[in-house]
Amino acid sequence: MLPAQHDSTIIRSIYDHSLSQSDCFKNLEILCRNYPKRLAGSPGAASAVEWTKKIMDDYGFDSVWLQPVMVPHWVNIEKERAAIMNADGSKTEVTVCALGNSIGTGPGGISASIIEVKNFEELVALGKKSIEGKIVFYNRPMDPLLINTFEAYGGAVNQRHAGAVEAAKYGAVGVVVRSMTLNLDDYPHTGAMRYDDTIPKIPACAISTIGAELLSNELKNNPSLKFYFRQNCGMQEEVLSYNVIGEIKGSEHPEEVIVVGGHLDAWETGDGAHDDGAGCVQSIEVLRIFNELGMKPKHTIRCVMFMNEENGLRGAKEYAKVADEKNEIHVFAVESDAGGFVPRGFGLDGPDSIRNKIIEWCSSLEPYGIHAFYHWGGADISPLKEQGCFLAGLAPDSQRYFDVHHAATDVMENINKRELELGAAAIAALIYLVDKNGLK
Amino acid sequence: MLPAQHDSTIIRSIYDHSLSQSDCFKNLEILCRNYPKRLAGSPGAASAVEWTKKIMDDYGFDSVWLQPVMVPHWVNIEKERAAIMNADGSKTEVTVCALGNSIGTGPGGISASIIEVKNFEELVALGKKSIEGKIVFYNRPMDPLLINTFEAYGGAVNQRHAGAVEAAKYGAVGVVVRSMTLNLDDYPHTGAMRYDDTIPKIPACAISTIGAELLSNELKNNPSLKFYFRQNCGMQEEVLSYNVIGEIKGSEHPEEVIVVGGHLDAWETGDGAHDDGAGCVQSIEVLRIFNELGMKPKHTIRCVMFMNEENGLRGAKEYAKVADEKNEIHVFAVESDAGGFVPRGFGLDGPDSIRNKIIEWCSSLEPYGIHAFYHWGGADISPLKEQGCFLAGLAPDSQRYFDVHHAATDVMENINKRELELGAAAIAALIYLVDKNGLK
Repeated sequence: MLPAQHDSTIIRSIYDHSLSQSDCFKNLEILCRNYPKRLAGSPGAASAVEWTKKIMDDYGFDSVWLQPVMVPHWVNIEKERAAIMNADGSKTEVTVCALGNSIGTGPGGISASIIEVKNFEELVALGKKSIEGKIVFYNRPMDPLLINTFEAYGGAVNQRHAGAVEAAKYGAVGVVVRSMTLNLDDYPHTGAMRYDDTIPKIPACAISTIGAELLSNELKNNPSLKFYFRQNCGMQEEVLSYNVIGEIKGSEHPEEVIVVGGHLDAWETGDGAHDDGAGCVQSIEVLRIFNELGMKPKHTIRCVMFMNEENGLRGAKEYAKVADEKNEIHVFAVESDAGGFVPRGFGLDGPDSIRNKIIEWCSSLEPYGIHAFYHWGGADISPLKEQGCFLAGLAPDSQRYFDVHHAATDVMENINKRELELGAAAIAALIYLVDKNGLK
Repeated sequence: MLPAQHDSTIIRSIYDHSLSQSDCFKNLEILCRNYPKRLAGSPGAASAVEWTKKIMDDYGFDSVWLQPVMVPHWVNIEKERAAIMNADGSKTEVTVCALGNSIGTGPGGISASIIEVKNFEELVALGKKSIEGKIVFYNRPMDPLLINTFEAYGGAVNQRHAGAVEAAKYGAVGVVVRSMTLNLDDYPHTGAMRYDDTIPKIPACAISTIGAELLSNELKNNPSLKFYFRQNCGMQEEVLSYNVIGEIKGSEHPEEVIVVGGHLDAWETGDGAHDDGAGCVQSIEVLRIFNELGMKPKHTIRCVMFMNEENGLRGAKEYAKVADEKNEIHVFAVESDAGGFVPRGFGLDGPDSIRNKIIEWCSSLEPYGIHAFYHWGGADISPLKEQGCFLAGLAPDSQRYFDVHHAATDVMENINKRELELGAAAIAALIYLVDKNGLK
């Protein structure tokens, strides 16, 4: 019985510290206030890298360093404009934003007939004759019936990722994608789209859900109406950027690494408070908690601020590549990239034998509301899986995430201090359990 | 296996309906927009009673009626004023609000030396000589280390309830109570206080947590500083008001009643969106779901909008009294009065044998995030316990509740539509299970 009691005491200390002396909220305020625009390659990202390194240095982690990585540099220069062109010659403005990685429309914008579809199969059925020269409007909503909103996102997001490529195959001149949110509101939600070098590149934007509903209704009345949008954005030369890394050296297995991370880059629509400022400050906080409570980990614990998760994953790939080159052994990696909401459990991605052990250990986190276990890790740590690293992801309650995801609402005002702190504590407690018990 | 499969199908239908066709959010918008000021006895409460009856009528519940009850009528007429009177003659304004049921200060306000205490024991130690003629400042914060914020509230709220009576015993002329919130912000949080007819009545207000911290720091520098506050409030003649009741008649045991309820009255500081507009619209929605899905309950299911939970509980007492007089059999009662946040479980208050059965049935709600069970019901249904009624309460996640509780922040903007709908679905599913299986 003694070891279990000891665990519960340590875990209680972690939570006590988090709920009374955490720097999470303060650090996230600084990050969002001073570095709100920090998409990979931007000056804001460069400043955020410097600041993040400085706070890790100031916390006195055993080592802090920058890991260079070349990143894409997508820029979005002017406020986007869009309107429904009514039959009577009037215009109804609607709210859009450029999709990340999209080309611009040119200064004159694009004006064309618009055709609504719900999925790629409809494109096939319509064929080139119906689509050529038009804008394609993807309007399949996220499914509100799914309890976990990430599943609903997964079921809709191919419209944003691949919509331009699929529509361009049939000669479309642009795409407008319904924003990835369950809310009916007037905030457009951006996010990455991608081109295929063999298919013509056409501009892509996201329309707010209110705009999407309006447009869809207008199209019912007048299927031949035209749509206009203008955006001034595009990809520039690649830029040298960095992953920011801090670590506490392990006392027994310094050569075995446990990673905890989030991504420092964020879409320019909001301040990246939940996505993923929260994950960054929580990851730093985990190491800080170990130091503050005098907990000496057996394994090396490393926090990583990955660069360029949003539109390239270059930081993640570089981190894994360097780890490979250096023959580093990564035993466990936890990512926090699902928002700073109240934690409900973890994604756990790896062999069932280990997964079941971790779930058993996590019974000591039940009094703290940890009860749900999924089968995923996270995008930035995913390249480590090949090396046999067991992956985990913080699973906060998902209900509010897509209210703010990639939108102007992803700001500090929508962060709850305690929820953020409980997330940091949950990750610290999980890492404590894994570090202490080992995964072998 | 068949009955369990059937349960899961019905429960899935309840959730599907709630997440796609619920009226909860719309009804709460109407309630908060049109009847934001609805403290018991107010004209707003009278209008809210009418509106609530009308929507139950419009939904076609089997019976809808008003249950008369006399309620206290506390009014708060002018914006409160308060200031720290600095030694140099300057004033530092701080944000306060009158505590519910408190008397006013008179038009000149109260200006007196102020003494800080953390609890009633300190009053005893200080004694009359240190307290007489002064304002007592209760400044014991809610404990941030408690994971469930209701426990933190329970540990601090006696300062608000009984602070004036306890301080007046030692000759205090007024009390200022630190707001019941874990946030550090500038919103004062009201709530009920009470007098004792044998002890002089002194005015009581709540100060924002930012104001409390400031005042406490100033007192450290200058223990003899004076404090000023003015409030124009007080109790008026009792007023005739109503509980609003709607029911669907049971098909097998019409004489046995299952109650689902919230309270219609709300403090005037905010719009009562979470407290307890959410519980009201959810309770109405439960009956609507049964009707819409064609579910014929075996027992009579009754939704009750209780009046005067906040500062008297008269509606609750009257409801139980009338039930007694009519020899009604109440088998089960669920209250939703802990906010419209994402549901995590239920409070269950009654014999363990029944409690364990309900928890077992609730395993079918695990996919919907229901996992936590507590030992409470709710204030408005509590008088039914004497009759042998089993009590339950919706247990939403508690982290954000005291950000808004009894404050200007308890408004529609802080309601998440899906969280509200998931709460209604959870209650409807629980009642479905109890109705179907019975509690005998």
